[in-house]
Amino acid sequence: MTIDFDHAHALDAADPLALLRDRFHLPDGVIYLDGNSLGPLPRATVARQKDMLEKQWGDGLIRSWNDADWIGAPERIGGKIARLIGAKPHEVLIADSVSVNIFKLLVAAAQLSPDRPQILSEAGNFHTDLHIASGAAELLPDQRLDVVERSAIEGAIGGDTNIALLTHIHYKTAERFDMAALTARARDAGARVLWDLSHSVGAVPLDLNGCGAELAVGCGYKYLNGGPGAPAFLYVAESLQDRLVSPLRGWFGHARPFAFEDAYEPAPGIMRFQAGTPPMLAMDALEGGIASFDGVEMDAVWAKSVQLFDLFARLAERYCGQLTCVSPTDPDRRGSHISFRFDHAYELTQALIARGIIGDFRAPDIIRFGLTPLYLRHEDIVRAVAAMAKILAEESWRDPRFAERGRVT
Amino acid sequence: MTIDFDHAHALDAADPLALLRDRFHLPDGVIYLDGNSLGPLPRATVARQKDMLEKQWGDGLIRSWNDADWIGAPERIGGKIARLIGAKPHEVLIADSVSVNIFKLLVAAAQLSPDRPQILSEAGNFHTDLHIASGAAELLPDQRLDVVERSAIEGAIGGDTNIALLTHIHYKTAERFDMAALTARARDAGARVLWDLSHSVGAVPLDLNGCGAELAVGCGYKYLNGGPGAPAFLYVAESLQDRLVSPLRGWFGHARPFAFEDAYEPAPGIMRFQAGTPPMLAMDALEGGIASFDGVEMDAVWAKSVQLFDLFARLAERYCGQLTCVSPTDPDRRGSHISFRFDHAYELTQALIARGIIGDFRAPDIIRFGLTPLYLRHEDIVRAVAAMAKILAEESWRDPRFAERGRVT
Repeated sequence: MTIDFDHAHALDAADPLALLRDRFHLPDGVIYLDGNSLGPLPRATVARQKDMLEKQWGDGLIRSWNDADWIGAPERIGGKIARLIGAKPHEVLIADSVSVNIFKLLVAAAQLSPDRPQILSEAGNFHTDLHIASGAAELLPDQRLDVVERSAIEGAIGGDTNIALLTHIHYKTAERFDMAALTARARDAGARVLWDLSHSVGAVPLDLNGCGAELAVGCGYKYLNGGPGAPAFLYVAESLQDRLVSPLRGWFGHARPFAFEDAYEPAPGIMRFQAGTPPMLAMDALEGGIASFDGVEMDAVWAKSVQLFDLFARLAERYCGQLTCVSPTDPDRRGSHISFRFDHAYELTQALIARGIIGDFRAPDIIRFGLTPLYLRHEDIVRAVAAMAKILAEESWRDPRFAERGRVT
Repeated sequence: MTIDFDHAHALDAADPLALLRDRFHLPDGVIYLDGNSLGPLPRATVARQKDMLEKQWGDGLIRSWNDADWIGAPERIGGKIARLIGAKPHEVLIADSVSVNIFKLLVAAAQLSPDRPQILSEAGNFHTDLHIASGAAELLPDQRLDVVERSAIEGAIGGDTNIALLTHIHYKTAERFDMAALTARARDAGARVLWDLSHSVGAVPLDLNGCGAELAVGCGYKYLNGGPGAPAFLYVAESLQDRLVSPLRGWFGHARPFAFEDAYEPAPGIMRFQAGTPPMLAMDALEGGIASFDGVEMDAVWAKSVQLFDLFARLAERYCGQLTCVSPTDPDRRGSHISFRFDHAYELTQALIARGIIGDFRAPDIIRFGLTPLYLRHEDIVRAVAAMAKILAEESWRDPRFAERGRVT
C-alpha cells in the first residue's frame, strides 16, 4: 500500500485543516475513528476545566452564578452552536440530554395540534428516539406512534400527521434525510418535523433557518467534543418559541426563577425549555468542545469529510472485500461516518481496538468509523484500512478474546 | 463577644468532626454558610476530576465506558448515597436533575392509581416541585394538582389522594415533615408519598426503609458537595421498582441498551429510571462529593448541626434583635439551616457577602444560613453573627450597592 500512503501524505500536506489536530489530545498509538460516538478531549478544555473547578466553584462558590455568568451559560453556549446549524443564537439552548429534550419538544409541539393523531418515526431510528416517542404518545390523549420504514416516511406524512421525529443522519448507515424537502413536505401537510441532529451537528453543514426547520435536538458529546455524556442542545424556531410550553416545567424555565412563585409562568423565548439546574462542570466542558470549531467553516470540514470518506471507501473496496459498505456513496445523501456490514463485526471491532484503531460496533452486524476532519489525517485512514485488511486476511478476529463482551458493546 | 468566642473555641476543641474541614477547599477570608445551596469543593475532587478528564476521557476515550466502568456509575454512585438515606444500595440511582426525576417518579407512580385523582403538594413548596407537578397533572387524564397550606397537608391526604409530593425539609424555613407519620398516613389512605430530600440528604439522619418510604428524589450539589448543577438522585423502594415505568424512556433505561431494539423494554430494577447518557464529568464530581462523607456517621453530623443551630439562634437572639427566626427551635422538627425574616434581607445578605460571609437570600424577605458540620466551626458562627450584628447596628446594609440585583438573587 506504499502508493496509498504516498497519496494520503500528499492529501495531508495540502489539507487546510491540518493544524486543527493540535487542538486535541490524541493518545499515542491510537487512531481514533469513534469521534462520532465520543469526541476526544480538546487540549484547551483541560485548562478551562481547572479554572471552572478551582476558581469558579472552589473560590467563587455560589457567587459564580452571577460573577462567572453560570446563569447565562445555557443560552450563551447554545448561541455558539447556532452558527454550526444555521440558526439564530437565541434559538438554541443547552439543556438535559437528547432523550429528555426530545420528550420536551415532542410533547409540547404535539399539544399544538391535538386533532392530528399521528407521531411518525422511522423503523430502525436510534432507539432512544423511538422509546421516548412511544412514552410521549402513551401520555398524550389520541396520539399514536407510527413507525414506518425509511423509504415510506415521505409518503406517510399526511393529514393525520402531527409531528415526525426524524434523525437527520442515521446513526448506523450515515444515510441523510433531505431536511429541506421533508420540512416542506410536512409544512404542506400541516405537520411538523422534530429533527434529531446528533450525528449531524459539527459533521455536515446545516441550515435550519434556510430549510424552515422548526424544531431540533442534538448531541454535545459526539462531533462537538463536549465530553462523555455532555449536555444536549435543543433548537426552537423563533416563531414557535412562545407557543410551546414544556411538559417539564423546571424552575430554570420559569419567567422569574428566583421569585419562588407557586404558579408556573414560562420564561419568554428559548429559556422556557430549561428544566432543572444546569450541570456547570459539564456545561463548561461542552463550551470547550464547541470552541474546537472556532475559526472553522463547516463547508471546509465537510469538504475534508468527503475526501476522507472517498479514501476509506475506495481502499476498503480494494483491500477488504469481505465487508459491505452500507453508507451512501453520494455525499449529499450521507453524513460523516462510514459503516460496513460484516457477520463478525463485533470481533473485527475488538481486533482493531486491540491494535489501537478505535471504531465501534453497532448491533447486530455493523462496524462503524467516524470521519472527523478536525483531527483525522488521510494517513490515519490508510493505516486503519491496512490494519483491517490484515486482520481480515489472517482472520485474526477469530481469537476468542475478541468475542468477549463488555457491558457496553 | 469575647465570652462567645471562648465558648465557641471550646466547642471546636471538643468537636469530633473538626478534622473533616481539611477535606474541603475553603477560600481565605470566607465563612461559607451556603453549603445548602452549593456545597464547597472537596480537595480530593480536584485530583479525581483531573484523572477523569485526562486519563479516562483523554486517554481512555470511548473505551472508558467499560474500562473505567462509566456504564456502572449511576448505580454505583447511587449505592453510595443509600447509606446516608437508609436505603438499600440498589434502590438509589443517579440521574438527570431533581426536576426531571420528580416528573419521572410522579407520573410513573400516579399511573398506578388512575382512579385516584389528586396529586397533593404544599403551598410555598420549592417551586420547581410545584411546577413539575402541575405539568404532570395536566398531562395525566383525570389528575389534578391540589396545593394546600402546610398545616393542612396531613388532613388533605384521603381517599382521593393518588400521590403527595412533599419536601421533607423546607428550603426556606427548614421545617421538617414527619416522614414516618406522613408515610403511614398515606399508606393507610391507600395513597403514596414522593419525598423531595434536597435539603435533607447529608443534612439529617434519614431512614427511608424504616419509614416505609417508597419514592424519593434528592439533590447532589447541596450537602453532598457534588458540584454546581450536579446530577440528582432518585430512590424507588425495591417492592415498587418493577411496577413503575418511566415516562422518559431513554435508552439507558432499556433492558438491553446496546441491542438497539425498536421496542421499549424497561431494564429490571432501578436502572429503568435512567433516561439519556449520564454526564460522566459531573457524575465523577458527585462521587467525589459523596466521598466527603466517608467514615462519617449521619448521627454525628446531626449532633453537630444541632449545636451549630443552637449557637446561631442564641447569638442572633441576643445581638440581632431586628431579625425574626423562622426555623423551628425543636431539632426534631427542622433541618440543618437557619433562616430569619427581615424586611431588608436582600441588602443584608449582600452586605454580609461583601465581608466574606456567604449566606443567601430567599425572596421576598428571608436570609438563610446553611449549617454544614463537615467544614463549619463554631467560631465561624460567632464571627458571622458578630458581623451581622455590626451591619444591623450601623445599618450599613443601606449602602445603595447592596440593593443592586444580579440575575441570580
